[in-house]
Amino acid sequence: MSRETDLRHMAHALSLGRRGLGRVWPNPNVGCVIVKDGRVVGRGRTADSGRPHAETQALAQAGDAARGATAYVTLEPCAHHGRTPPCADALVAAGVARVVVAAQDPDPRVAGKGLARLREAGIAVEIGVREAEARADLAGFLSRVERGRPFVTLKLAATLDGRIATATGESRWITGPEARARVHMMRARHDAVMVGGGTARADDPSLTVRGLGIERQPVRVVLSRRLDLPQDGVLARTAYEVPLWLCHDPAADAAGWTALGAKSLPCEIAGGQVSVGAALAALAGEGITRVFCEGGAGLAASLLGAGLVDELVLFTAGVAIGAEGTPALSAMGVDRLAAAPRLRLARQERVGADVMSVWRAGAL
Amino acid sequence: MSRETDLRHMAHALSLGRRGLGRVWPNPNVGCVIVKDGRVVGRGRTADSGRPHAETQALAQAGDAARGATAYVTLEPCAHHGRTPPCADALVAAGVARVVVAAQDPDPRVAGKGLARLREAGIAVEIGVREAEARADLAGFLSRVERGRPFVTLKLAATLDGRIATATGESRWITGPEARARVHMMRARHDAVMVGGGTARADDPSLTVRGLGIERQPVRVVLSRRLDLPQDGVLARTAYEVPLWLCHDPAADAAGWTALGAKSLPCEIAGGQVSVGAALAALAGEGITRVFCEGGAGLAASLLGAGLVDELVLFTAGVAIGAEGTPALSAMGVDRLAAAPRLRLARQERVGADVMSVWRAGAL
Repeated sequence: MSRETDLRHMAHALSLGRRGLGRVWPNPNVGCVIVKDGRVVGRGRTADSGRPHAETQALAQAGDAARGATAYVTLEPCAHHGRTPPCADALVAAGVARVVVAAQDPDPRVAGKGLARLREAGIAVEIGVREAEARADLAGFLSRVERGRPFVTLKLAATLDGRIATATGESRWITGPEARARVHMMRARHDAVMVGGGTARADDPSLTVRGLGIERQPVRVVLSRRLDLPQDGVLARTAYEVPLWLCHDPAADAAGWTALGAKSLPCEIAGGQVSVGAALAALAGEGITRVFCEGGAGLAASLLGAGLVDELVLFTAGVAIGAEGTPALSAMGVDRLAAAPRLRLARQERVGADVMSVWRAGAL
Repeated sequence: MSRETDLRHMAHALSLGRRGLGRVWPNPNVGCVIVKDGRVVGRGRTADSGRPHAETQALAQAGDAARGATAYVTLEPCAHHGRTPPCADALVAAGVARVVVAAQDPDPRVAGKGLARLREAGIAVEIGVREAEARADLAGFLSRVERGRPFVTLKLAATLDGRIATATGESRWITGPEARARVHMMRARHDAVMVGGGTARADDPSLTVRGLGIERQPVRVVLSRRLDLPQDGVLARTAYEVPLWLCHDPAADAAGWTALGAKSLPCEIAGGQVSVGAALAALAGEGITRVFCEGGAGLAASLLGAGLVDELVLFTAGVAIGAEGTPALSAMGVDRLAAAPRLRLARQERVGADVMSVWRAGAL
């Protein structure tokens, strides 16, 4: 098959995989397309909550047509027995003739073994087709496996002069309804939404995805050293409906919160705060691959200062508050520009009356 | 002639007029095209420093071909004798058959008189073709005549979190070379570049347009209540080459500065500072129609707070400094969002590694 055909079918598989963003953790958001004689005979993506896997579903759809077909998979098929038999075995059993893979799986239980299993069975294997795109789409899973922490998106919604609230704490609404709707879409594409305890106290937010008709809500994560959050707030009242995870000092008593339905994640303390690195490691340990952080200024500054922000989404509104307002980032201890965290511009666009700019860290 | 033809020729005249931005004060940046039998036989714009006028030049270029032709002029031709005879008379004398005008001149010496003069002579006159565009292009002149102050563009170049310098004062460079080149282009399209005294002291800037090969530099304006600026700085050393105007407390002694070549503009004091309204009125009185303000944070906040910013150009760089950094706007006394100055987004684009967003006040 031609290179162009391969690229086209892999783009299709990637688009299927992207539909799983925020819905398939702890598993990767894989997409799979099975093509026989130029016709797509099966397609699948990792199902919500992580299984069945993409290949299983695509093979089931293809049925007998899979024999002699080419399978396009965005991530190396798994080779280990988990709760389901390995996908590499399933591809072999179905009689697939050729497997095209975008990215290799860094999971040590897979890493090359899936490809080897296919080759042993006489299947033609190609790796690296649209690999960069696949690694971007799978960044959450790859980050969890390779770096032991989730992919972190930091959202800031600020005035022209970088303020997120007036001196009196008024922050609703700096950005417009279109920007807020976009934020809900972004929440839905992450496994977890995370805020600091100060924001949870000040805003009494629900942190849920609204207006999109989704069934699986992201996990809500609050970093609160002392767990001094209002137990009559929206988060507390809804902890049985939508997961609420609390990262806190091991010395704090979480019993009241677990009784309300929250999950307790004791984390190391650093600089008088819950260590952001420890909190992210704890989330990765629970299977979270993508975190959407919505502030406040202290948590945002800690993440940026620690080099733990992979993508920063800045909404800028056409309003000026001046220096009495709450800054988008609290103190970072940066005195030289050369030492300040730098990100590169990925894209910018108008969203309603506001500007959205997306910035990326160098790493992924 | 058809409406489409009129629109096309007026667009041409407007594009000629725009070339005069920043170069023709105290006069308006008018453009003129003369069309005979579908052919452009003359074109002109207000010359640098304000004369000859656009019509004079276009008529000279057209010569005898002006007889029976249509003249497209972006602003109502003048009807008063200044240093040159009125353009309305020149159009009549040239035998022009029809005059199409974009915007009426609000100058009380002209206001309708130019059009009346043409009509009296039997010339067909049409007014209002591309009027909104013309008013936007001529905003500086219109502002000076209608509001007694120049059009004000405020430029801010800040980090993701709205900072313009580190705690130690380091500000070079937050934005990249492309953004800085864009700033020089913007300076060149304004009659004057304005900063506060603090910025003049801290940055020792030249405030000139560099790298564009222009001959006429914008006037450099510094607001400094006490004139406590270094007399061995770049501004002082170059005051004989490039105009340096100082807006200051009438009680401050300007003799040392005028001896260096600067112009003294005593201005009313308000709230312990040179009143920004008084300073802008003084600039308008000197013929300035377009001002480009480059900070600092105090002057920027005063202008925004007083509703004196017509256009705000924000460059956002992919770097985070945190709350110890210098804010882009100093305190504004805004405690409620509803009371904060709002601007609407005109456009946004990537400039090098930075985002440039342009915001407009409602007024003009």
